[in-house]
Amino acid sequence: MDVDVVVIGAGPAGENAAGRAVRGGLTAAVVEEHLAGGECSYYACIPSKALLRPMELRAEVSRVPGLSAGPIDVEKVLARRDEAISGLDDSGQAEWVGKLPAALLRGRGRLTGPREVEVRAADGTVTRLRARHAVVLATGSVPIVPEIPGLAGARPWFSRDATTVKEVPRRLAVLGGGVVACEMAQALHALGAEETTLLVRGGLLGKMEPFAGESVAASMRESGIDVRTGAAVARVERAAADGPVTVHLGDGSVLEADELLVATGRRAAVRDLGLESAGLSADGPVEVDDSMRVPGTDWLYAVGDVNGRNLLTHMGKYQARVCGDVIAARAAGRPDDGPSLRDGADGRGAPQVVFTDPQVAAVGLTAEQARGKGLDVRVVDYDLGAVSGAYLLGDGYTGRARAVVDEAHKVLVGVTFAGPAVAELLHAATIAVTAEVPLDTLWHAVPAFPTVSEVWLRLLEEYGL
Amino acid sequence: MDVDVVVIGAGPAGENAAGRAVRGGLTAAVVEEHLAGGECSYYACIPSKALLRPMELRAEVSRVPGLSAGPIDVEKVLARRDEAISGLDDSGQAEWVGKLPAALLRGRGRLTGPREVEVRAADGTVTRLRARHAVVLATGSVPIVPEIPGLAGARPWFSRDATTVKEVPRRLAVLGGGVVACEMAQALHALGAEETTLLVRGGLLGKMEPFAGESVAASMRESGIDVRTGAAVARVERAAADGPVTVHLGDGSVLEADELLVATGRRAAVRDLGLESAGLSADGPVEVDDSMRVPGTDWLYAVGDVNGRNLLTHMGKYQARVCGDVIAARAAGRPDDGPSLRDGADGRGAPQVVFTDPQVAAVGLTAEQARGKGLDVRVVDYDLGAVSGAYLLGDGYTGRARAVVDEAHKVLVGVTFAGPAVAELLHAATIAVTAEVPLDTLWHAVPAFPTVSEVWLRLLEEYGL
Repeated sequence: MDVDVVVIGAGPAGENAAGRAVRGGLTAAVVEEHLAGGECSYYACIPSKALLRPMELRAEVSRVPGLSAGPIDVEKVLARRDEAISGLDDSGQAEWVGKLPAALLRGRGRLTGPREVEVRAADGTVTRLRARHAVVLATGSVPIVPEIPGLAGARPWFSRDATTVKEVPRRLAVLGGGVVACEMAQALHALGAEETTLLVRGGLLGKMEPFAGESVAASMRESGIDVRTGAAVARVERAAADGPVTVHLGDGSVLEADELLVATGRRAAVRDLGLESAGLSADGPVEVDDSMRVPGTDWLYAVGDVNGRNLLTHMGKYQARVCGDVIAARAAGRPDDGPSLRDGADGRGAPQVVFTDPQVAAVGLTAEQARGKGLDVRVVDYDLGAVSGAYLLGDGYTGRARAVVDEAHKVLVGVTFAGPAVAELLHAATIAVTAEVPLDTLWHAVPAFPTVSEVWLRLLEEYGL
Repeated sequence: MDVDVVVIGAGPAGENAAGRAVRGGLTAAVVEEHLAGGECSYYACIPSKALLRPMELRAEVSRVPGLSAGPIDVEKVLARRDEAISGLDDSGQAEWVGKLPAALLRGRGRLTGPREVEVRAADGTVTRLRARHAVVLATGSVPIVPEIPGLAGARPWFSRDATTVKEVPRRLAVLGGGVVACEMAQALHALGAEETTLLVRGGLLGKMEPFAGESVAASMRESGIDVRTGAAVARVERAAADGPVTVHLGDGSVLEADELLVATGRRAAVRDLGLESAGLSADGPVEVDDSMRVPGTDWLYAVGDVNGRNLLTHMGKYQARVCGDVIAARAAGRPDDGPSLRDGADGRGAPQVVFTDPQVAAVGLTAEQARGKGLDVRVVDYDLGAVSGAYLLGDGYTGRARAVVDEAHKVLVGVTFAGPAVAELLHAATIAVTAEVPLDTLWHAVPAFPTVSEVWLRLLEEYGL
């Protein structure tokens, strides 16, 4: 089968790459081994947020005198999560791909040579695809399995097990301190994992401003989660297949839990992808230039987690839009160097929201990262709880905002918010950082009173405007 | 008493004008007849939001399966409102003024000639102030009392009565369809005004995009509020002082209520302000140039509601920052034409959030206003409920976003959101409109998934990027 563009992986990145290429006048085939819609739709962003929302809202209610919430009905929450992930039925997403229109091929995709992809279906049928213009790798990522003695044999949980949980374990151990570890520890704790222990080598949310992880750790501890930073796991065992898991820590102590969730990071999904046939290393990530093309080829592209830029759904989709557009432009012999045909966002530090309680929302560089780049940095902090709009959201609202200013250019290069319901504060920062809006101009962008966004005024006043 | 700057009115605008002038090296005296902190702190934004918050949150809870909220405890809500307005005790605010430092003079301020202000205290004592550099009028606004036969004698409520309510009337009639009318009708209905009737001549929120008021009206009706658009009031009477009020409508029908809230707009508070002594008309608003100075004078300024630009706390504070800074610059003989010394925001269409359910947040021009200015306009609408981040907030989330694009310059000149919890979405739009960020740049400002802010991507896609 010949087609203009072959996309391997029908997650958000793959779907969008195909969609933009088709919009640009090309034909496309999308290869998917598991579910059209990808990790995000069934096993990551969507179910995790569905599980977290009742917890978040219950916390908001607890801060408002005169309103009270009953206990969380776990069955109903799980039922809504199931609805949100369409019961792991991808027919809606498959239909969406069909309507692009693009062909959806079920099976495992593998490069076999330049512009050549082999698709092996579950029943062993093999289909060979030839791409006239481009092959796009969008295979996503898989959890990293740390090398801990006994772990593999102890039937650990990974993120998918946590997000599609059907029966919440009473005793849960979580290994890791990143987004998945923090979000799922809190969600499952709120849904019944009374004894939840977080085991993390360093601090929480280590890639963000230190106060972000500290505030999440404090909130976890207050809610009864046992947060153990600086923890090393020496050995794991599950003596009986249906019995508990025992975690032996580096300090000699022992922890028993019903389930152990391993959330220690993800790596590019490149196994058996045939990268060698394109002259590439078999290891990921698949590095690309700012047009999402693999250097040294004129036909191979990679978008989303597999290219290792930023393992975030929205960044994968963004890269996919660049990629689909640039493939269409090159196929048509049009100029391929317009501003929308280059990745101008990943390098700045991608926007990200962590849906913990408190939420964390950040974009751009942390103060430390900015200093590491040699920038002349000024850091401005403000207590979010001192903003009238935050007080009106509830008693005892605490939070913090940080702006990192590039003093040479008088623009923001990084902004972080940590506090209840800060998710929607982020996009203002993303625009300010991306568009490099001068502080003198931001001064005239007046936040409406009494919103939490008034923190923008406070940060600029603190800066000295 | 001689001082560099005399400010009449210690509301947010007056306080900020004094604060910025003092920061610029000047001395200041602030004159306040009633409460330091002004209308906003005691009778407007702050108490209204405190009254609205439980209603808003209860609606959010109702959309999340697995979580439920009990009935609102009205006494506790009123108690928190009282706490939010410091029980009408302004000592904290007075202290804040003192710490600027600035003198706070209690009494009614009145212009008596160029740079001359007379302060008459409650006990009749008169103090004469001479301003070396400037007098700033920051007296705010008062409710407009419509000319309806019988109204004045029927003891109507105005906004202050509603926001400081101690006993919620069972039957409430509200006259008007603006922000105060909509917010207080919903708040009091949720707090026990079972029979709430909104009487509005035109539509709701008439200065905003039509869908904003329509969605608020639909929500009100669904909650049981009787919304009567196109209603005219012919006559009002309250036969017995402690009896109900009877509203005779233009169509001959009659409505009986326990209280009638009149919220038909506000006008500049200029009565007995001595404007004639400065050669001005005794009527407001006091028009000013973009440095907040009254044309034809070199000493008289006006900030906040009294100048009629935009009757919003945050815009008054913004104007006050411009004003205080410009007075200090002129007093010192420094250049007075820097970008921070001119009002660059009011003319674009001020940002505003209406804390109804659904919330409405808007900045810049409506489509109609933009067309009226002769702009080549393209309107892009998107269904907020179709955004994944909105679905995850709750079942049945409905809302709408509108972007108004200036096609000649490819920038946004207006953005409106209507939907639950959209307040914090606004500042991104305010930055985009104020900084005139090109659409091609906004394209690289990637909204984090899964937030409601992803509507930014959808709007740009709809536009054709």
